[in-house]
Amino acid sequence: MLENTNRTDISTLGEFGLIEHLTSQFEIKNNTTLKGVGDDAAVIKVDGKCLLVTTDLLLEGIHFDLSYYPLKHLGYKAVSVNVSDIYAMNGTAKQITVSIGMSSKFSLEAIEEIYEGIKSACEHYEVDLIGGDTSASKQGLILSITAIGEAEEKNIVYRKGAKDGDLLCVTGDLGGAYVGLQVLEREKIVFLADPNAQPDLDGHDYIIGRQLKPEARKDVIDFFKKAELLPTSMIDISDGLSSEIFHLCSQSEIGITVYEDKIPIDPTTYNMAREFDFDPTMTTMNGGEDYELLFTIDQKDYDKVKNDHNITVIGHCVPRGEGIHMISKSGNKHPLKAQGWKAF
Amino acid sequence: MLENTNRTDISTLGEFGLIEHLTSQFEIKNNTTLKGVGDDAAVIKVDGKCLLVTTDLLLEGIHFDLSYYPLKHLGYKAVSVNVSDIYAMNGTAKQITVSIGMSSKFSLEAIEEIYEGIKSACEHYEVDLIGGDTSASKQGLILSITAIGEAEEKNIVYRKGAKDGDLLCVTGDLGGAYVGLQVLEREKIVFLADPNAQPDLDGHDYIIGRQLKPEARKDVIDFFKKAELLPTSMIDISDGLSSEIFHLCSQSEIGITVYEDKIPIDPTTYNMAREFDFDPTMTTMNGGEDYELLFTIDQKDYDKVKNDHNITVIGHCVPRGEGIHMISKSGNKHPLKAQGWKAF
Repeated sequence: MLENTNRTDISTLGEFGLIEHLTSQFEIKNNTTLKGVGDDAAVIKVDGKCLLVTTDLLLEGIHFDLSYYPLKHLGYKAVSVNVSDIYAMNGTAKQITVSIGMSSKFSLEAIEEIYEGIKSACEHYEVDLIGGDTSASKQGLILSITAIGEAEEKNIVYRKGAKDGDLLCVTGDLGGAYVGLQVLEREKIVFLADPNAQPDLDGHDYIIGRQLKPEARKDVIDFFKKAELLPTSMIDISDGLSSEIFHLCSQSEIGITVYEDKIPIDPTTYNMAREFDFDPTMTTMNGGEDYELLFTIDQKDYDKVKNDHNITVIGHCVPRGEGIHMISKSGNKHPLKAQGWKAF
Repeated sequence: MLENTNRTDISTLGEFGLIEHLTSQFEIKNNTTLKGVGDDAAVIKVDGKCLLVTTDLLLEGIHFDLSYYPLKHLGYKAVSVNVSDIYAMNGTAKQITVSIGMSSKFSLEAIEEIYEGIKSACEHYEVDLIGGDTSASKQGLILSITAIGEAEEKNIVYRKGAKDGDLLCVTGDLGGAYVGLQVLEREKIVFLADPNAQPDLDGHDYIIGRQLKPEARKDVIDFFKKAELLPTSMIDISDGLSSEIFHLCSQSEIGITVYEDKIPIDPTTYNMAREFDFDPTMTTMNGGEDYELLFTIDQKDYDKVKNDHNITVIGHCVPRGEGIHMISKSGNKHPLKAQGWKAF
């Protein structure tokens, strides 16, 4: 059944190419489906309101390594990455479903720890667990979460909508989750070589926390509401700043110029990147898993964000033909390349 | 991390016990969440309408065996089992999300076959594919589908609601999917022993079709609408008639008496069960995967169903204290045992 005379390796398409390839033949038939595949979340219109729906699959050995990932944190993160997609549409997360597959190596106590993390996230984000599925698996842990959110149709922010002259903004700081992962991977190798070695995690709390317990930016969505600020486009940073900039440009049909010296990076992230011999800027551009928000605003709204310490203006939109560039600290202009995290 | 001094094996709880154990500590905080865990689908109120949400995880080696499961059928079935849960709430299925994890043994052509089946099901059930996730997996194929449906609040039918005197009805016929699976398993063993042997599937089209391409009963929901019939309780038969009767009884706080000679079974299912030395009635009671609907109606509605060839009255509701029984063909009364399909 799996034998095919024409065998195309999936990795040749990449994740986004694969989704596009598989779903482009599907037609939308229900007039309540406002937006299907192609944004952070789908949009369903129900009477006066809109519902947002997003889903993520997290697989052991692909998305997480249980040798250093505490189960409670894993449960928390699985919820965070999903509600983050709802916030990226400027919506309020309301419900989640959790499906879990687990092999016989997992005890009830282990699964309870995952659910403790899920519960803690449900309380933090004020979402209800409304359903799911549980099953044995042949190998490893499988977590599939779907998040549902609400928004007024006029307040939904898509990846499409940025226009020439808009300012490009990012929340928090970038690259921390990636260098945090490198520290954890390094300590795992030390541990495998000498199981009596103690992990050297001192002073790395911030970046390890960025990797193990990312927080979705509910606070920023609350701020938008309070400040009466409606971004022109938005996406969450799961695959790296560079990759997300490409998504905004492609869907909004614009170009973007981003300034290297404006990209927010925490000093501990910066120092650790140097210790690993990484270019700190490349870490912020291609690291991924920061779950910060990247959005564009009209210039007239600059006053609303300029004093907010959570938000940094890092660039601006230009006409599509001008392309996507970074102005380096030395003032040179380089074309940007999308890399991002690849699951294949 | 997976070491626990207190280690409880998950199989000691069973699937329903596990879900109950893990989710009972979660509180519902949003007043739009009308129904969380515990029915065929969750119910979310949005303005005047209600949305129904259900999700299922399908894992290679647990829920399906690709040595005899055509990928296109797998895609179709994955949608069917989800929309079936929406119909079991008397709702209309509208949207699905599909997450897929696959190991490197799967080519693009193989995944395309799965999506062909999904597309065919989307067309049949008139649902839109609105999102999902794709990822590599370490081993095997993982399918996680979430289905979303709509209903007027007053038309939603829960597992709770049956009352003393109501008639117990079932659609279609039962046990076919289970004996179909036995035929496929038998031919697999023959094939493994002698790869040159031709599979002997002649005359088994109906039961193999019941296993490989189950149809969710959209037609029955359409009939309810047309006949202006609102069941008092309903569930879909995924784990076997016996197990589903126990769910209705427990949630509606009633007892049920079911008549063995009324349970619909197709002659090919009956004959094949005998060939395998199974009791045909036990096959209908504990087989599972038929995806028919089990529901109760008020006696005054009997005239609406009595001439419908899709619907069979198989028993009636009694007070809780009278318990759950089957009247055998010989007229004896036996207490019923819930068995159903176990994923652990």
